[in-house]
Amino acid sequence: MARTPQLRLHGYAVSNYFNIAHAALIETARDFELVTTRVSQEAQFLAVSPMGKIPVLQTPQGWIAETVAILGYIEDSLPVPTLHAADPFQRARERQVINILQLYVEMPVRSLFPGVFMGTSNSTATLDAARITLDRAIGALRRLIAPRPFLMGETLSYADLFAFYCLDIAERVFGFVYDRSILAELGLELWFAQMTARDSSQAVLVLFEAAFASYLAEKNAAYRFQPVGYRLGAGSAEQRPA
Amino acid sequence: MARTPQLRLHGYAVSNYFNIAHAALIETARDFELVTTRVSQEAQFLAVSPMGKIPVLQTPQGWIAETVAILGYIEDSLPVPTLHAADPFQRARERQVINILQLYVEMPVRSLFPGVFMGTSNSTATLDAARITLDRAIGALRRLIAPRPFLMGETLSYADLFAFYCLDIAERVFGFVYDRSILAELGLELWFAQMTARDSSQAVLVLFEAAFASYLAEKNAAYRFQPVGYRLGAGSAEQRPA
Repeated sequence: MARTPQLRLHGYAVSNYFNIAHAALIETARDFELVTTRVSQEAQFLAVSPMGKIPVLQTPQGWIAETVAILGYIEDSLPVPTLHAADPFQRARERQVINILQLYVEMPVRSLFPGVFMGTSNSTATLDAARITLDRAIGALRRLIAPRPFLMGETLSYADLFAFYCLDIAERVFGFVYDRSILAELGLELWFAQMTARDSSQAVLVLFEAAFASYLAEKNAAYRFQPVGYRLGAGSAEQRPA
Repeated sequence: MARTPQLRLHGYAVSNYFNIAHAALIETARDFELVTTRVSQEAQFLAVSPMGKIPVLQTPQGWIAETVAILGYIEDSLPVPTLHAADPFQRARERQVINILQLYVEMPVRSLFPGVFMGTSNSTATLDAARITLDRAIGALRRLIAPRPFLMGETLSYADLFAFYCLDIAERVFGFVYDRSILAELGLELWFAQMTARDSSQAVLVLFEAAFASYLAEKNAAYRFQPVGYRLGAGSAEQRPA
């Protein structure tokens, strides 16, 4: 019988932050549905997503925007710790990694989007500022994470989900702008392939590929779409080309 | 008898993020000590604070950097929820506010530091980009917070601490750069005065004032130091000038 799930995730799959929240809902086995919504500065949307951004999560108590807050809600509304360590120190280390990804990888990578995905160009000042921050972030992440086989240890955590969708975009931008591989520099190629093979990733990426191809065409992007190290339906990491 | 507390907060009071963590340790009645440390890209410091930033918290299990992760550790290592709501939705709303402050107030405000505090200038492009983001953040925060008397309700939360030290700097930069008051635009003048009067704030601000005055002189800053709406030792919000 038709029924509306209590959790509704609004946004669409071109947003890697939407994809992080979507993957978290799948990985925690929540009952949810997706509602296709684009970013907007219209008053009606700002009333639920006050920065006008996606994703935004509709819950029985109201709306939550900002991906880190959505992940916090997903975790805290479960009966037991699921994708966060139970230990306060390990949990803080996960948050440290997520915040470094958010501030010092995602933000500078996004500053490069105009010249890569949006049909305009990036100034030398922008390229230089982004590179300085990104190089520091790579150094920091190399000190903090080592797949065993997941980033923070033996079990999947929100840090893996955040890193997977953040680094997927960062890898594309790095290749295009700097002719470098951030995955290789972080030693995360095998981890990335293993993450790609997860059921949650496959469900999310099939939506991403369609949305991303349309977006690039619409924006007349310089970037040419190619899957980064994943092959939908390939079924296992072992089939990934070296 | 002399004894080293288990928690040692490294950094110094010119950093508003150091001040947030310091205030949180006071407000949660933790046993801690401060260790004066400046930002550094030296290998020895990067080994404990991988982005080279302050604050960084030394715990019995190791080091944690990134202020939001430090706040998470402080909270999670307490026996009961203290400065976070126990309810998952309310807690997520607190995290939403903190993330908006971190990404869309603090980051653009920091992009303006060179022309305000560091003796150089800000380009028109930088000024315009910061203003667009800050105006959106002001609109967002007006929708999310209303002092009752604290930002998220009847009790103090990490959102209050994060907002207080973030907006203290933002208020100075707004006045200097845009001739505007972010506190007035957010309707937070009374809340700011009440926060200023707290014992934790007075303990933190006395260190801030000394550190900030030295910093500005060292950097040959265009900005002239004046306390923003607080008078150390005034003792109560009522004595604050209108």
